[in-house]
Amino acid sequence: MLEERIASLLLVDHHCHGVVRRDLDRPGFESLLTEAEEPGGPGGSLFDSRIGFAVRRWCAPVLDLPAHADPDEYLARRAELGAAEVNRRFLQAAGLEALCVDTGHLPEALLDPAELGGLAKADAYEVLRLERLAEEVAADGVSASAFAAEVRSRLAVRAPHVVGFKSVAAYRAGLELAGERPSDGEVAKAAGRLLRDAERGLAGCDAPPRVHDEVLHRFLVWCASDLGGPVQFHVGYGDADADLRRGDPLLLTGLLRELARRGTPVMLLHNYPFHRNAGYLAQVFPNVFVDVGLAAHNLGDRAPVILAELMELAPFGKVLYSSDAYGLPELFHLGALLFRRGLTRILGDGVAEGSWTERDAARIAELIGSGNARRVYRLGERT
Amino acid sequence: MLEERIASLLLVDHHCHGVVRRDLDRPGFESLLTEAEEPGGPGGSLFDSRIGFAVRRWCAPVLDLPAHADPDEYLARRAELGAAEVNRRFLQAAGLEALCVDTGHLPEALLDPAELGGLAKADAYEVLRLERLAEEVAADGVSASAFAAEVRSRLAVRAPHVVGFKSVAAYRAGLELAGERPSDGEVAKAAGRLLRDAERGLAGCDAPPRVHDEVLHRFLVWCASDLGGPVQFHVGYGDADADLRRGDPLLLTGLLRELARRGTPVMLLHNYPFHRNAGYLAQVFPNVFVDVGLAAHNLGDRAPVILAELMELAPFGKVLYSSDAYGLPELFHLGALLFRRGLTRILGDGVAEGSWTERDAARIAELIGSGNARRVYRLGERT
Amino acid sequence: MLEERIASLLLVDHHCHGVVRRDLDRPGFESLLTEAEEPGGPGGSLFDSRIGFAVRRWCAPVLDLPAHADPDEYLARRAELGAAEVNRRFLQAAGLEALCVDTGHLPEALLDPAELGGLAKADAYEVLRLERLAEEVAADGVSASAFAAEVRSRLAVRAPHVVGFKSVAAYRAGLELAGERPSDGEVAKAAGRLLRDAERGLAGCDAPPRVHDEVLHRFLVWCASDLGGPVQFHVGYGDADADLRRGDPLLLTGLLRELARRGTPVMLLHNYPFHRNAGYLAQVFPNVFVDVGLAAHNLGDRAPVILAELMELAPFGKVLYSSDAYGLPELFHLGALLFRRGLTRILGDGVAEGSWTERDAARIAELIGSGNARRVYRLGERT
Repeated sequence: MLEERIASLLLVDHHCHGVVRRDLDRPGFESLLTEAEEPGGPGGSLFDSRIGFAVRRWCAPVLDLPAHADPDEYLARRAELGAAEVNRRFLQAAGLEALCVDTGHLPEALLDPAELGGLAKADAYEVLRLERLAEEVAADGVSASAFAAEVRSRLAVRAPHVVGFKSVAAYRAGLELAGERPSDGEVAKAAGRLLRDAERGLAGCDAPPRVHDEVLHRFLVWCASDLGGPVQFHVGYGDADADLRRGDPLLLTGLLRELARRGTPVMLLHNYPFHRNAGYLAQVFPNVFVDVGLAAHNLGDRAPVILAELMELAPFGKVLYSSDAYGLPELFHLGALLFRRGLTRILGDGVAEGSWTERDAARIAELIGSGNARRVYRLGERT
Repeated sequence: MLEERIASLLLVDHHCHGVVRRDLDRPGFESLLTEAEEPGGPGGSLFDSRIGFAVRRWCAPVLDLPAHADPDEYLARRAELGAAEVNRRFLQAAGLEALCVDTGHLPEALLDPAELGGLAKADAYEVLRLERLAEEVAADGVSASAFAAEVRSRLAVRAPHVVGFKSVAAYRAGLELAGERPSDGEVAKAAGRLLRDAERGLAGCDAPPRVHDEVLHRFLVWCASDLGGPVQFHVGYGDADADLRRGDPLLLTGLLRELARRGTPVMLLHNYPFHRNAGYLAQVFPNVFVDVGLAAHNLGDRAPVILAELMELAPFGKVLYSSDAYGLPELFHLGALLFRRGLTRILGDGVAEGSWTERDAARIAELIGSGNARRVYRLGERT
Repeated sequence: MLEERIASLLLVDHHCHGVVRRDLDRPGFESLLTEAEEPGGPGGSLFDSRIGFAVRRWCAPVLDLPAHADPDEYLARRAELGAAEVNRRFLQAAGLEALCVDTGHLPEALLDPAELGGLAKADAYEVLRLERLAEEVAADGVSASAFAAEVRSRLAVRAPHVVGFKSVAAYRAGLELAGERPSDGEVAKAAGRLLRDAERGLAGCDAPPRVHDEVLHRFLVWCASDLGGPVQFHVGYGDADADLRRGDPLLLTGLLRELARRGTPVMLLHNYPFHRNAGYLAQVFPNVFVDVGLAAHNLGDRAPVILAELMELAPFGKVLYSSDAYGLPELFHLGALLFRRGLTRILGDGVAEGSWTERDAARIAELIGSGNARRVYRLGERT
């Protein structure tokens, strides 16, 4: 009964991205499957990993194939159906009530929030990536001393249309952000460096400007806090661009303490392999919320294990669901399915062992699956 | 049979605190339940977490309620019985042979070791908190150059009456303590800073002096080593005041190497989420002992999992039991009960899988439950 | 059926050492059993730990004793049979196809690769320890400016006779090695320091020279990369000489990125308790391979747990087997047996849960047990 309730529970996916519009061959598919930069190489196919086996087991049937279909068979069927139909099937299979889409990472044209929501038959919300907005300001040209005001002004315009803000500091300067709000002078100085990068970029001799400065990441988080948040942080596991050592959520402790005083909700995303550290932060700071998105689908049938580790110290009112799906629609389906399996195992084992009642288990499942996200993002009030 | 033996085994709780004398309302109870600074907030009730469910399941019957009683029902019954009776019931339910009480943290009047021992029908010993003694010396007034001698002299007076010493460096300067004994000059200089803080405190314009200086923490540990130890270190998980990053026991490696040469026993307390690191230290250093107190009750029915992780590398002659109970008497009961469940699961599974014999399992249970602590603290010789 | 296939699978042990030739008394045996410097002490016997119980359970029958024989009985039987016969029995029981022997750690005369291979009836290969070669160059006398060329020249001579190179930077300067190839000037300067140590050693007033300089460790890795690798790194768990904090594989991120560009295979050895970090690196870098040697036998019947944690993110084409056996022949047998049990549990549970088919499970077992190692070390091409 608990299993059925969780199976039919519509989830709020509080952090995801768009999916690609184009058809994918096997290298294209494998390159989007994990955080590896390129598939193949001396390690063989990425289908020979937990996520690969999860695709063959759980996604093949959605495309009318038997479970455990061979990778080539799977990709042939995928091509046959076409990207549009594949996207539709997996988004719908995810069983979502709402999704909050980070629209800040666009190396190619992806489905936008409205399109994703349409396919998923779910409410779609946008999450604004802070560094991207700052980089747009830099690219558009502004003086160093006017940079802060211009960022604040654009954020204020965008804020009513988004449900939260996202920081990718973990990918750039790392999560060791100081606790204090940076002074105007510090921001202007850091902006000057960014703008010089931007000028070189405009002159065609360099890449577009990238925020990778502790002061600017921190400034952006404070701006988001001034607007009431919530602020999402990429934490832990990501691709090889990031230095995982600098992605430990404990590095945020000082800043979290300040944001707790200000009452700004903070969402620590992914967290693997630091998810126990994240669970600790969720217990001791009233404003900290956590999930294990991204890791969930990458770990395949091991996903219940890390969800259980997260839920050691993290109060159940602080745990959320996210897929962190990007590129492949399969990840929406896998993320939701593996999350449901994990929740069913954890809460069901607890009922079996007598740790809690079935009634409490059902209530907790609803909180973690959607209630906590609805409450923190005030989703009901926004639509 | 193993289960029954472990159920009836009287434990040595080698690290705990006093409990409050007053009756508690729900906010008061929740604020003592976990390491969160305050209950409630946007994350909801702390009863919706592993420790909250453990209280409802395991503590309610001790108060004559059915398992899984509602939180409000539980607190009503608690008030009805009154703090004295509640304290008596849970201390007795813990099944202790002895308890070693850290008396150094007293934000309010707590039951003292003799009272705890009386309720638990167990031998009670005191553990001296090093930083508190140093702060008392500073508050009483002394010259910077006389500070070290005064600390040593007071410690020598107290030492015969305590079974060990406790360092809270993890909460202050962090565990990155150098290996060398600090020179008299270094201690006098650091004492000077502490005394200036103390003077400001006496003038009413500041809080009482707090040791938060690497040199002073280290000096105190060396003093305790000169007196033969054992030295307990708070490690890992604690409240939001601590910076958990600085609580990794690996930071102590250099100092542990010196203390190993001197034969000073060191007890690494709590350790979560660094308990595997602690297990490694317990294997490679002959003088290092470990437990998973605090985490055990906070993790509720997950406690067996971390005890199993600790017992991967840690030799079984190096593992101890502690509750780290503070404030709520429930934590004495929960700590002991969840520890017994963990030990039963780990040792019993080993018997079932053929990893060891039932006879060996019973012997190991006795070592971990009380024998190791009796041996290292020389408890028998002291009473 | 899967269990039988894995039981009969001949393994490639891609990282091990020699075993002692002499008979061992109980202190001698216990001192080689774990990474503890000396047995006994206040923590009691090391037989009371997971590895000790694993010896009594799994090794006693190989010496014709019942499982769970007492330690003294076990050592008496061992002495009765004599070291040569004991070595023969355990090496043969391991069930190896090939072994790659690190010959660089020789505090006493150990069996050499050919002897190990003879006893195991397996192909034997040598792995060259980089720091040892550099120390030999320093001890033989060379100018600082000629040091680099001499190292390169000796490596080129040895390279055709070895299957890979090993770095013990984790035990010395730590794994925080920069990404860039050091300049000739930097190497000469660092060599000068090493040579001054060597001179003092020759003068009899100091120990032999030891490489413990970030520049030299890095230089040696680049030399090994120039020769095509693979490069093995000691990572994580080791004895008390190492500072475990500096053994986190994430510290290698920058260097791994460079070696990925150059296509040099890197083998991260042991990894406990950082094995999840290692699994992440194996996913995101195409050239990174991982194992949980050393930890496997030290963890006894818990070995399957850490293998499962490693295999969360690590693609199955990137996971290898090693025993890291050293000194005791028991460790060849225990390593192989516990690895087989772990693999059987993980892959068998997956079949039972429907995560993959039995056919895929058998294929993956062959990859991890021997195929991946054969491919990366090109073992077939070398014999």
